[in-house]
Amino acid sequence: MPKTKFIRRSSAKQSVGGEVENYYLHLGSKPSPKEHIIATYRVESRFAWEKVATEIAAETSIGTWTQLSTLKAPIARKLAGRVFNIDKKKKLIKIAYPLALFEKASIPQLLSGLAGNVFSLRMIKNIRLEDLDFPQKYLNNFGGPAFGRNRVKYKLRAKNRPLIGAIMKPKIGLSASENARLAYRLWVNGADIVKDDENLTNLDFNQFKHRVEQVLYEKTKAQLVTKKKKMYVFNVTATPDVMMKRAKIVERSGGKCVMVDIISVGLDNVQMLRKANLRLIIHGHRAGHSAFTRNPRHGISYLVIAKLARMAGVDQLHTGTVVGKMADVEEDVLEVNKSLTEKFGKFKPTLPIASGGLHPGLVPNLVKILGKDIIINFGGGIHGHPSGSSAGARAASQAVEAVVKGKNIKAWANKKDNKELKQALEHWGS
Amino acid sequence: MPKTKFIRRSSAKQSVGGEVENYYLHLGSKPSPKEHIIATYRVESRFAWEKVATEIAAETSIGTWTQLSTLKAPIARKLAGRVFNIDKKKKLIKIAYPLALFEKASIPQLLSGLAGNVFSLRMIKNIRLEDLDFPQKYLNNFGGPAFGRNRVKYKLRAKNRPLIGAIMKPKIGLSASENARLAYRLWVNGADIVKDDENLTNLDFNQFKHRVEQVLYEKTKAQLVTKKKKMYVFNVTATPDVMMKRAKIVERSGGKCVMVDIISVGLDNVQMLRKANLRLIIHGHRAGHSAFTRNPRHGISYLVIAKLARMAGVDQLHTGTVVGKMADVEEDVLEVNKSLTEKFGKFKPTLPIASGGLHPGLVPNLVKILGKDIIINFGGGIHGHPSGSSAGARAASQAVEAVVKGKNIKAWANKKDNKELKQALEHWGS
Repeated sequence: MPKTKFIRRSSAKQSVGGEVENYYLHLGSKPSPKEHIIATYRVESRFAWEKVATEIAAETSIGTWTQLSTLKAPIARKLAGRVFNIDKKKKLIKIAYPLALFEKASIPQLLSGLAGNVFSLRMIKNIRLEDLDFPQKYLNNFGGPAFGRNRVKYKLRAKNRPLIGAIMKPKIGLSASENARLAYRLWVNGADIVKDDENLTNLDFNQFKHRVEQVLYEKTKAQLVTKKKKMYVFNVTATPDVMMKRAKIVERSGGKCVMVDIISVGLDNVQMLRKANLRLIIHGHRAGHSAFTRNPRHGISYLVIAKLARMAGVDQLHTGTVVGKMADVEEDVLEVNKSLTEKFGKFKPTLPIASGGLHPGLVPNLVKILGKDIIINFGGGIHGHPSGSSAGARAASQAVEAVVKGKNIKAWANKKDNKELKQALEHWGS
Repeated sequence: MPKTKFIRRSSAKQSVGGEVENYYLHLGSKPSPKEHIIATYRVESRFAWEKVATEIAAETSIGTWTQLSTLKAPIARKLAGRVFNIDKKKKLIKIAYPLALFEKASIPQLLSGLAGNVFSLRMIKNIRLEDLDFPQKYLNNFGGPAFGRNRVKYKLRAKNRPLIGAIMKPKIGLSASENARLAYRLWVNGADIVKDDENLTNLDFNQFKHRVEQVLYEKTKAQLVTKKKKMYVFNVTATPDVMMKRAKIVERSGGKCVMVDIISVGLDNVQMLRKANLRLIIHGHRAGHSAFTRNPRHGISYLVIAKLARMAGVDQLHTGTVVGKMADVEEDVLEVNKSLTEKFGKFKPTLPIASGGLHPGLVPNLVKILGKDIIINFGGGIHGHPSGSSAGARAASQAVEAVVKGKNIKAWANKKDNKELKQALEHWGS
């Protein structure tokens, strides 16, 4: 036998704590919150817990399925992921990883390790990365939001109320000038923020550059007319080189905010964008996340994604509606929103966005559950209003007004100035 | 009622084919393979098939959950995703999307649309994007592999045999110089290709730049000694700006190949790297894919990812082993390998890589299933050899030799020159 021993996993000859040293299993040991990244996995497997936990810790740090001649004991003891807790009832395995395993400011490298091959292991039936906790030292490598919740709310003079967001609908189909004129109507009828939808980028009949020009022209007009600050969210989701070019177009044109689909381009792009310091608010869309977050038994929790998004520099992030068209779970959304705004490194809070299937009648319940420090995005819930988009924007702002003033929404809708809200409630219910 | 009608989905008032026009449902119609991208979804829902299919087609193209005043009929008829087939038995829904919906060369934009919010819809229990088919016109926007299978095999003079890849193990823990010296031993003992593992990027004790310098120095030596061409795969997985810098370091230093984790940084990064035309072979690692590919009922099939990877420009791609530590299904791996090498646009074939838990004893079965046009990656299966990594590399190449010569591996192991193979078979079985 070679001197440097290594547990031979996936093998009948395995001997935990016997003549072969298990570098990975340290049940009951205490990780150092200053020196370790801690991952919590939820696991289902027909194999013994200790065996499975060892396999996971090895695959996510320095090991593989067999004993290695090249892994010297001092290195292994220094770098191995250390399983310190197994909660068999909750199916949770907690592993502490020494910081030396990680590149300084690379979300991709972190994910390739802790959310990589581990999902493929044959020995495991289901595995979900539920949570990650980071030492301050690691977090210091990341910029976090350049603006964050408070700055966004201040910019739009909305300290004590939710922000009203309006999504362009149809998702795709309007020309740049139709898009701009519609945005104007939404702003003057009460929307604070108007935004591109997730698949509207640069299309033949609505080119990015034209959209930026025309929308910002209309924004200036809307600000003059309403004497209020308005915002447009330009979708710069693209390959990284193109994304940067488009973000610079927005910056040079006087725009203030860009949207990145953090799933389809990844948080690596957000990191790059943040580092470029273009003084643009970063709006994080999350189309596609449910491919791996929705199954509670396998994949990655959205909590993990949200924490990483805040580290990377997302100022405002889609997190769920609880009440809309998307299948999110109330307690999950609350947990994510809490994680975006509670103390975390030295980062500013990220502003949560509720988006997907919302209409005015849902606003009271939404705010009751999620609070006032959110952006409420309406798409169909504005453009589907029986009297059109302008009426839809008015109905949305009347609904928000009712909630902010503590009024019953149905009573509020009966006031003669609020007939658009009344129509909306009749159309979609409340 | 407004003139432009739109089906009100998720609503009791919905009337398919009645007074409200359903832009999305065209069962039995024929899509044009020259004008449409065709998506195949596998779906589970308790709602009626037509209703669910309409919801999916709307959400992935231009619609949302309610009737929109802003969606004019001519635009809707032109841009809607069109459901043309529902196979209730197989649970498959096929939708044709007009090209006007898509940006020319943006995998992120494609994914935000077709693999975006659709995974979140409350109405659907499970949904998996099983396949995508593309018109030539769309494919022409992409570069595909700059080198491809044949060029890689030619460069390494391996026309009629599998290539032998050796993965650095431990994944993390060796210094740059230990790494380089170990690579030398692997090359001179038979490996064609030596590669970084997925979480080895730029670490304090093994810095990228040093690794490149020292590894390429050892590669030159190994080529002189063996009189054979060798390759090293440098992992450039990082944020896009850093990834490009590292790729340029490899290029300037005379390296030939870089590895990108196509999941943790995304195919958008591969597109950018390919466009830069650095004359580097792009090696696609896939750590993390199983977070959304493993569940056969929900997520995205690896077939879709593999097609997109070929479009983006991946020259050689991890696709599964069937026989190793990873949980892949034989028919899926075969289908993916076929899709990488069959006619597809004007793209060169991508070389499939079998990687994960392989050892010499598995080679005959592996090649029997997957054929000779693959890279066989060994990690633990080399470094776990009882006599060390050099012996491991010899055993791996003896196993490949046996298969190429059509010899029985056990008989071949009994030849006196092949004692390393014999040891490997005794150690891990065959």
